[in-house]
Amino acid sequence: MDLEPPVRALLDQYRAMAGAGLSLDDMPTLRGMVRLPDLSDGPVDGVAISDTEIDGVPVRLYRPAGRGDLPLHLYFHGGGFVVGSALSGDLDGLLSRRALDAACLVASVEYRLAPEHRFPAGVNDCYTALTGLTADPGRHGIALDAVTVGGSSSGGNFAAAVSLMTRDLGGPALALQLLEIAGTDLTKTSNAWRNPRPEHDTSRETDLAMVDLYLSSLAERAHPYASPLFAPDLEGLAPAYFMNAEFDPRRDECEAYAARLRDAGVQAVSRTLPGHVHGSMSLPDWQPARDWRAEANTVLAAVNKAALAGEAVELPA
Amino acid sequence: MDLEPPVRALLDQYRAMAGAGLSLDDMPTLRGMVRLPDLSDGPVDGVAISDTEIDGVPVRLYRPAGRGDLPLHLYFHGGGFVVGSALSGDLDGLLSRRALDAACLVASVEYRLAPEHRFPAGVNDCYTALTGLTADPGRHGIALDAVTVGGSSSGGNFAAAVSLMTRDLGGPALALQLLEIAGTDLTKTSNAWRNPRPEHDTSRETDLAMVDLYLSSLAERAHPYASPLFAPDLEGLAPAYFMNAEFDPRRDECEAYAARLRDAGVQAVSRTLPGHVHGSMSLPDWQPARDWRAEANTVLAAVNKAALAGEAVELPA
Repeated sequence: MDLEPPVRALLDQYRAMAGAGLSLDDMPTLRGMVRLPDLSDGPVDGVAISDTEIDGVPVRLYRPAGRGDLPLHLYFHGGGFVVGSALSGDLDGLLSRRALDAACLVASVEYRLAPEHRFPAGVNDCYTALTGLTADPGRHGIALDAVTVGGSSSGGNFAAAVSLMTRDLGGPALALQLLEIAGTDLTKTSNAWRNPRPEHDTSRETDLAMVDLYLSSLAERAHPYASPLFAPDLEGLAPAYFMNAEFDPRRDECEAYAARLRDAGVQAVSRTLPGHVHGSMSLPDWQPARDWRAEANTVLAAVNKAALAGEAVELPA
Repeated sequence: MDLEPPVRALLDQYRAMAGAGLSLDDMPTLRGMVRLPDLSDGPVDGVAISDTEIDGVPVRLYRPAGRGDLPLHLYFHGGGFVVGSALSGDLDGLLSRRALDAACLVASVEYRLAPEHRFPAGVNDCYTALTGLTADPGRHGIALDAVTVGGSSSGGNFAAAVSLMTRDLGGPALALQLLEIAGTDLTKTSNAWRNPRPEHDTSRETDLAMVDLYLSSLAERAHPYASPLFAPDLEGLAPAYFMNAEFDPRRDECEAYAARLRDAGVQAVSRTLPGHVHGSMSLPDWQPARDWRAEANTVLAAVNKAALAGEAVELPA
């Protein structure tokens, strides 16, 4: 196992959490264990944080000071569909930095969690936040030419699904889907899941047990808004930038999805970041994690700039 | 393990075959190992067997003597997409009996096998045989009111897929899809696959390795013509009669598919035959296997009779 010490320690932490249990009674304990460190990567000045509600969905907004209409980036947090919160404060550093560095309004969505609220409740909340925010761009100071979505892990799943939904339902056009360590195949059938490695954060069975809390039936596993990889038609989707950890079993399914997107004429770049496992991009003091976060913000900044200028988005290869 | 001796012996045989290997070089050996015994269940008189070609697809026909236009039953043999043949003679007893007892012309399709010919070659051949035979009903003596499809294991997968195809593509209407020990979910994600039992004929990994020979990509696993369970819309499909072995890990996915069919307003009956494992309905001298074959033919006979009379098909519950 060729992993650096902070990454190995993270894997040990995952293994400890796996013992917490996944019943409804276990949720308070499990949710209490999942806290993210501050990921602001240095001082962040002049970003106003405020909470609002968009068509009934709570949203936390991060707005850099002193600018007019801004690009909008909708962010969907991770947590296996069952844990995590946009309102906990855990993401304030990460998303203030993103708002500042990518020069955009970031909206972090407090979607409903499983198992209390199963598919498609959470992803519908994300889509509602998108349509609600963009329906009144003047109120929120949003430049409609530069609307993007992004998320990590299950939040990346939501970002891919919302990209499909907005195309299917005639919602606002997106300039980018930024998919970090995303799950795009909830059947977990790729070779990576079938060949467990000690560097994996979880096993197929353990992860399917979490997906069982989110989906209500076997047939839902291949629904395009649950497993975007299986959407029959990918034409007309937003450009996609995938950031995958080298040792994440989800990397295979993201690479397969990126290939399908390109086959459908959609710009898609799939990046593999070496030495990373699932979630190690959220380590606070490990340089490759800082690099990861900087890369995400740099890509988003470039897309925002091009979109505002009315230019075609060209993702870095 | 509560299995009768012939069934236990069959499981041992499966385990021996699992050692044959699945590369292209192994195929002649593997294909040579898979032979079915005579399953005519007693004397069969007056069924004419002939071979023909339908739009380039070889087909073996079983026609009971002395009748005019007959119902048509298209049969797709099993063999994990990679072995088996309609022309080997192995199925002559089984399908002569079916033709006689269900009073229909049976057409057994020599579809192309993987890995030489991958998805959708085989299932397309099956659909070609259906459209070709029904395009010239006078030539073949076919009553178009009573056309049905059926198959076992991977052949049941084809029968379900062809039922979707003929609806989607405006092909001939079907009076029944008869699905014996069918695979309807090639992601193999149901609880049964996730909880191996000694009574299972194979493991998820071993069966996925076979599916890997048939499908070319991860995304194809959820294509409706590969995994009918995941077809987004099931409305307007033919009535379905599922025959599942108690200990077949595919039983779960067939029950899930039957439930989805009923939700879509399609008549679907899912039968579980106790004491059976995958494939034990092909044991020659075991009474529950004879009962299985008789049940399939009885259901088909009743459907043919009703369809010919222009009555609504009512499947036995």
